[in-house]
Amino acid sequence: MDKVRVIEIKKSVFAENEQDANALRQELKDRGVYLLNLMSAPGSGKTTTLIKTINLLKDKLRIAVMEADIDSDVDAVKIKEATGIQSIQLHTGGMCHLDAEMTRQGLDGLDLDGVDLVILENVGNLVCPAEFDTGAARNAMILSVPEGHDKPLKYPLMFSVCDVVVINKMDVAPYFDFDLEKCKEYIAMRNPNAKVIPICAKTGEGVEAFAQWLLEQVQTLKH
Amino acid sequence: MDKVRVIEIKKSVFAENEQDANALRQELKDRGVYLLNLMSAPGSGKTTTLIKTINLLKDKLRIAVMEADIDSDVDAVKIKEATGIQSIQLHTGGMCHLDAEMTRQGLDGLDLDGVDLVILENVGNLVCPAEFDTGAARNAMILSVPEGHDKPLKYPLMFSVCDVVVINKMDVAPYFDFDLEKCKEYIAMRNPNAKVIPICAKTGEGVEAFAQWLLEQVQTLKH
Repeated sequence: MDKVRVIEIKKSVFAENEQDANALRQELKDRGVYLLNLMSAPGSGKTTTLIKTINLLKDKLRIAVMEADIDSDVDAVKIKEATGIQSIQLHTGGMCHLDAEMTRQGLDGLDLDGVDLVILENVGNLVCPAEFDTGAARNAMILSVPEGHDKPLKYPLMFSVCDVVVINKMDVAPYFDFDLEKCKEYIAMRNPNAKVIPICAKTGEGVEAFAQWLLEQVQTLKH
Repeated sequence: MDKVRVIEIKKSVFAENEQDANALRQELKDRGVYLLNLMSAPGSGKTTTLIKTINLLKDKLRIAVMEADIDSDVDAVKIKEATGIQSIQLHTGGMCHLDAEMTRQGLDGLDLDGVDLVILENVGNLVCPAEFDTGAARNAMILSVPEGHDKPLKYPLMFSVCDVVVINKMDVAPYFDFDLEKCKEYIAMRNPNAKVIPICAKTGEGVEAFAQWLLEQVQTLKH
């Protein structure tokens, strides 16, 4: 198995996360680096979605990935093996989210030279990561079909801070009571501007639409 | 739709959660009330599992439920409608977990007279709830098949604090790359004493084993 770099994230010393996140966002913009913060519940398929997305975009953009996890390194290794791109693991040491300063510690561990897009895979959690601005240009989340279409009712903040909601595992929709139209309606209640993209990361269906959205976002930031 | 009581939970004033949790555990024991803390990721099927379990046990035990959620009331209403037992909703106001003092606020909203078993459905989150002792006699968690068998590797603390791990949605195992034996092995790495109970809450298969475990726990505490 490939070795990946592992960074043990320290607790932030800055009290003012919002200020720090705005400063980081500006710094990244000045360097021409687009940071996407990807959030979801545990087991929604973030890593598989990323692999498929990166393989669609890696000829068009130079991409790096930061995989945040409490303890394990499996995701960063998977990404590296399946895509060949620069991938590092951030250990949060039990912490349930990343803020801007913690994100900066991760970015310091990457070689950002020539990189267009950095994707941060946040800790699998629909509550805390929504409360902390990481300094990313955009927030994305993945909701998977088995979790149910009522999640925007139960985790309102997460849906309201996300620019795009990817709905994954659409292939198993027939086996679950998942109502896509109802889900879109609930997402719109929380955030009328959120883009909704149904996909199946396993088969790759729909991933093209997410990749296209991301490509446009990066290009818009750069011009 | 039935109306349920909703309690807005306030932040704890006690700094020493561990002490407070031990005190609450003793108080409940003295009153003959068994408190079960049920945790899981969002959408793993906690409420459906509870409904099936309660309907198997409600002739043997007097049960009450506290449903913790950030905002909505849907779960407490569902429980009340499907089982007829005492069910209240706790609003955490954005908080990602419950500690002992918050649990106590919920218990104060219940009529505990003659109640044998109180089940606390914690916030859907595999990180933070594991860090805070609620004062419960036992911790249970539900892992659902679509989340993947690798979750004990990624959320070590949650699995190490749970006395029982219910594996839900076994009916869809053929559609997911879920390895039950591997999952059991990973759970045992975190917690060799954890009991593992595979179920399908939707069909009710296996729920009897969880209900039986719970009944024995309550009876043991009372004698």
